[in-house]
Amino acid sequence: MEKNFPPASRSFASDNNAGVHPEVLEAIADANRGHVVAYGDDAYTRSAIKKFEEHFGPDIAVFFTFNGTGANVLSLQSLTRPFHSVLCSAFAHIYVDECGAPEKLTGCKLIPLPHYEGKITLDSVHEAYHGIGDQHHSQPRVISITQTTEMGTVYKPEEIQALAHFAHEHEMFLHVDGARIANAAVSLGQNLRQATRDLGVDVLSFGGTKNGILGGEAVVFFRQELSRDFLFLRKQSMQLASKMRFIAVQFEALLSDNLWRKSAEHANRMAQLLEKEVSRIPQVRIVWPVEANGVFAQIPKQAIAKIQQEYFFYMWIEEESIVRWMCSFDTTEDDVRRFAEVVARAVKG
Amino acid sequence: MEKNFPPASRSFASDNNAGVHPEVLEAIADANRGHVVAYGDDAYTRSAIKKFEEHFGPDIAVFFTFNGTGANVLSLQSLTRPFHSVLCSAFAHIYVDECGAPEKLTGCKLIPLPHYEGKITLDSVHEAYHGIGDQHHSQPRVISITQTTEMGTVYKPEEIQALAHFAHEHEMFLHVDGARIANAAVSLGQNLRQATRDLGVDVLSFGGTKNGILGGEAVVFFRQELSRDFLFLRKQSMQLASKMRFIAVQFEALLSDNLWRKSAEHANRMAQLLEKEVSRIPQVRIVWPVEANGVFAQIPKQAIAKIQQEYFFYMWIEEESIVRWMCSFDTTEDDVRRFAEVVARAVKG
Amino acid sequence: MEKNFPPASRSFASDNNAGVHPEVLEAIADANRGHVVAYGDDAYTRSAIKKFEEHFGPDIAVFFTFNGTGANVLSLQSLTRPFHSVLCSAFAHIYVDECGAPEKLTGCKLIPLPHYEGKITLDSVHEAYHGIGDQHHSQPRVISITQTTEMGTVYKPEEIQALAHFAHEHEMFLHVDGARIANAAVSLGQNLRQATRDLGVDVLSFGGTKNGILGGEAVVFFRQELSRDFLFLRKQSMQLASKMRFIAVQFEALLSDNLWRKSAEHANRMAQLLEKEVSRIPQVRIVWPVEANGVFAQIPKQAIAKIQQEYFFYMWIEEESIVRWMCSFDTTEDDVRRFAEVVARAVKG
Amino acid sequence: MEKNFPPASRSFASDNNAGVHPEVLEAIADANRGHVVAYGDDAYTRSAIKKFEEHFGPDIAVFFTFNGTGANVLSLQSLTRPFHSVLCSAFAHIYVDECGAPEKLTGCKLIPLPHYEGKITLDSVHEAYHGIGDQHHSQPRVISITQTTEMGTVYKPEEIQALAHFAHEHEMFLHVDGARIANAAVSLGQNLRQATRDLGVDVLSFGGTKNGILGGEAVVFFRQELSRDFLFLRKQSMQLASKMRFIAVQFEALLSDNLWRKSAEHANRMAQLLEKEVSRIPQVRIVWPVEANGVFAQIPKQAIAKIQQEYFFYMWIEEESIVRWMCSFDTTEDDVRRFAEVVARAVKG
Repeated sequence: MEKNFPPASRSFASDNNAGVHPEVLEAIADANRGHVVAYGDDAYTRSAIKKFEEHFGPDIAVFFTFNGTGANVLSLQSLTRPFHSVLCSAFAHIYVDECGAPEKLTGCKLIPLPHYEGKITLDSVHEAYHGIGDQHHSQPRVISITQTTEMGTVYKPEEIQALAHFAHEHEMFLHVDGARIANAAVSLGQNLRQATRDLGVDVLSFGGTKNGILGGEAVVFFRQELSRDFLFLRKQSMQLASKMRFIAVQFEALLSDNLWRKSAEHANRMAQLLEKEVSRIPQVRIVWPVEANGVFAQIPKQAIAKIQQEYFFYMWIEEESIVRWMCSFDTTEDDVRRFAEVVARAVKG
Repeated sequence: MEKNFPPASRSFASDNNAGVHPEVLEAIADANRGHVVAYGDDAYTRSAIKKFEEHFGPDIAVFFTFNGTGANVLSLQSLTRPFHSVLCSAFAHIYVDECGAPEKLTGCKLIPLPHYEGKITLDSVHEAYHGIGDQHHSQPRVISITQTTEMGTVYKPEEIQALAHFAHEHEMFLHVDGARIANAAVSLGQNLRQATRDLGVDVLSFGGTKNGILGGEAVVFFRQELSRDFLFLRKQSMQLASKMRFIAVQFEALLSDNLWRKSAEHANRMAQLLEKEVSRIPQVRIVWPVEANGVFAQIPKQAIAKIQQEYFFYMWIEEESIVRWMCSFDTTEDDVRRFAEVVARAVKG
Repeated sequence: MEKNFPPASRSFASDNNAGVHPEVLEAIADANRGHVVAYGDDAYTRSAIKKFEEHFGPDIAVFFTFNGTGANVLSLQSLTRPFHSVLCSAFAHIYVDECGAPEKLTGCKLIPLPHYEGKITLDSVHEAYHGIGDQHHSQPRVISITQTTEMGTVYKPEEIQALAHFAHEHEMFLHVDGARIANAAVSLGQNLRQATRDLGVDVLSFGGTKNGILGGEAVVFFRQELSRDFLFLRKQSMQLASKMRFIAVQFEALLSDNLWRKSAEHANRMAQLLEKEVSRIPQVRIVWPVEANGVFAQIPKQAIAKIQQEYFFYMWIEEESIVRWMCSFDTTEDDVRRFAEVVARAVKG
Repeated sequence: MEKNFPPASRSFASDNNAGVHPEVLEAIADANRGHVVAYGDDAYTRSAIKKFEEHFGPDIAVFFTFNGTGANVLSLQSLTRPFHSVLCSAFAHIYVDECGAPEKLTGCKLIPLPHYEGKITLDSVHEAYHGIGDQHHSQPRVISITQTTEMGTVYKPEEIQALAHFAHEHEMFLHVDGARIANAAVSLGQNLRQATRDLGVDVLSFGGTKNGILGGEAVVFFRQELSRDFLFLRKQSMQLASKMRFIAVQFEALLSDNLWRKSAEHANRMAQLLEKEVSRIPQVRIVWPVEANGVFAQIPKQAIAKIQQEYFFYMWIEEESIVRWMCSFDTTEDDVRRFAEVVARAVKG
């Protein structure tokens, strides 16, 4: 390894800029023993799936993928045929940040809905639900929401239930992009099952990468029959890992000893602290409720470049000068305070 | 981690049943320092790409993917449009073992050619090259070969040169599925560049997973202009890792201190030993030259199940009772001898 | 033929509910002489293409397809790769009325833009043009407009020029869905070339079916190099007619003796008359300028079903009780007056 | 229309080089009365579908498409998901002559089987049926045969029954590309139902274009539930005609007064005559049984160009100097005799 890598530091750019939780890394090292059958037919994978059953209950189907795009697209592929449409927020990750992967892979149309603080409403779903049976129109088949949303907010349980209810009344499915489902569950004081299956969710993209694992994501079906073709779809969609054990054990670690919860709680708490610290700065306006591990702030345009000299982060809505700051499992209180100081200095000018 | 995993052992089922080389695992652990920008714009990734340039020369373009299917399909996507066809062996991994991923993702037709000991011949390519300019026919655009082949044999340099020459004379490209390119290079006494770029290869799927890394594969373009759209194709094809550094450092390790070569040499040597050991058994017939790390043998049908009680491995051609035994970086001489004994006992009856 | 077909009558539902212009039918019958080579390599097709050159000028490339969806999708396929996006009105036919064909066939994302009276504005294109070079975002590649628009309005020449200029400044293309381009040209007092090529349009879906032909559409490339792959794309997209001559001669007839113009002028004039007649009815509000052959009116909800007992037509925007009435080459003044009376009676009662 | 079109003449190039049967053209003209609803919801279309029920029996589902590729691909789309495979002859039209449309549109793999005189055998299907349940392999889902075959031969009823039986025993479907099903039925002395549905066929591409209609093809489902998604698939695959009546009435005419049978019988008889005439020429070898309307002959290479100076036709297997000569509904005995003379002169030298 080169000697000239920059000194280790932590930014607020994204929870996927963080590294790997030590317990996860240890699990990987522990699994590095001898040969095991590839492609998922191994004891490590079976054991990890059992862990999911402990959390989500029996009669589920669980599959690992390489990344979140893979989990989302495979969820949608399992639920649709190409003439279907998927209703989602106009700001949804699947709509704006996957370079058209859902459309290309499923052949479906994604219908962008207006959102309020990152959440789609039942009304907007209602309005988008039309043209049923009309051969000229893509047929609505899936409602897909992101929990925690792309604006750092968290759907309330009754909001999810209402969407699930609508979906099921209209022969549709409810999919949750749960890249940050742990942060949402923690925020709501729920366990993983309460935050998903018990609300009527049909399929969940269960995120790990943004909660401290090295790489991997899981698709969890709460109705097993929906997963009938998954193995083939996954392979054909290039999301089948040969050395599957090394993805499986990461999830085993994440779901053991409450690691998922502790990491998410910590990240959320750091975001609360960050909110508190930057709220003191008059030129900083928090634009959406800080309900999970992200803080979204409107700050003076000229301050942004200054802060970015020390900390990389993403512009979220350029025209409104809204930026995103994310906390992760390894963010420290010191990190937060130092960053808040840099922000304070920058906005003062 | 559960206590009840089976004792570590090594099979001859596949080189991807092996775990991770300790140096690779160490590189991963070393890279777990602080935050770095996601999706490949980081110092680790840049450093790993430099390593590729050390081996393959300047003016190349290198990209990491999650797996071999991803590397192959993205190579083909970069070289084709959907009305093109890809000429490959009827036994090629891309033709028979990827659940139709190349067809689904590229839209192209794969044309299966006859092979001799796993290799396609210039003659068969010649014969398949027709219908040029005819709107009813998919237009041949890529010749794709596997080096080391699916039969454990190795194309000779002049064979590759001839295919490359034909390709370039006919406005086609030569792609190499190099899941085991290291084993081939070692077998031919060549370095990586000599075994690929210098022979006229245009795009290489450079394999790591079967040579001791945890997971990841690289696509190497020897003509940079062919990679112009790769970033978008990779993201849309769901092969973009967020924590890219952890793939990059595996390749950095593999390409440092000759690890790639030492691992491949060892695996090849173990295959030679295995060949020698099982050749003594009269009922075992080695069916193709053992030129890399695989041994393909015809053995009595009733012996197969017996051996598989102790060692899992794959039937290769069922009708002819041909099986495949693979060696890997961690196979030991003892492993080989013990396995040969099991085979000997089983065939005796 | 069954005797019990309903008596011939003319509705205002759509210009594609009309039959075939007698001159077009005659051209088909005339072409029914002996055998000619299939798939377009025949004298009839070459002759029809020459007619296009008479109208649009030299150095174009012209291809026939079966229908408008085919022409639109093939235009887009010629201009894009799957990671591109196409900017169009949220009300565009390609966006809402083709059951996701453009997405499925091209793999691209269609980006819905707000529209004013059916037209997208340069501002909205500007706003949608972002994320350039960002691997997570589909890359804008085509601006696609419909001329005559889905609201019956007509882009002004300078509006099209501005969009073409923006497109070309940003390495994009301008595509026109010209299902009713004839009605627009007539409305603007332009010939076909002035209304398209001279304004900077790159590719035109040239409509025939809605202007009195039996079936068929043409794709006209104003830059021949963009059509390089068209023959293969058309065949692979299932839009290649074997008895091509019978599509070709329809266009030959349409483009001869000003038939295209006379038919479109007539349809437009009937729409003007219809506007005049129904404008007298106090409960009827014309919602968009009647610039071509369609009249869009807001009428009392309860009147709609009543009128539809005698005349089928389409609800255009249900929530606002806006309906669409189309005139065609064979609409008569009597038809218009009788229909206006029915409307008048219905809204009164 | 230009005056300089070549004089009407008839070749033996293909039955789709022929024009339109006068009764079909008359039906089109008769349907050109007033306005009817577009896209298939009209009395003409309903009436034509009833005609199909008269021939094939009740409880079928019938849909019109633009062409044979459309009919074939939509049949396959209805029966598959992208991870499936379709077993067909290596010489099948869907395999070699549709520029990869089936692969691009369905995402499936087409598996080429060896054929004997154009027919696949149960044995070859057996052999290709493997890897079931293996996630790495496309899963066999459809057997697709062409009747009349691409070699002019006709599957015997018991051969089709055996394939249907195998398909149904293995959760697969039997599709027939019936571009020339009329010629086959006539050859077998069967009616249309006996030649298809009664043998266990699940879905039929029912050809019209090669039997004297202007353009159009039909997909006939013998199990209605398989057609559930057809309307959407057809629209999305760009095969929905707006002025549907003009396709429908062509089939109405074809299926009335035995026109389908008379035309096919005539074409078959002309092929018999052609066979008889050319068989007298010593240098001409008929290579496959003449069972329908095509004659396949091996003739001296140097004669081919000579004959083609007067008559265009297709080389069928270039390496073996095998050519194809097709007869159609309008071929006359004089045509045949004159052509045979030209052949005789050419081969003599």
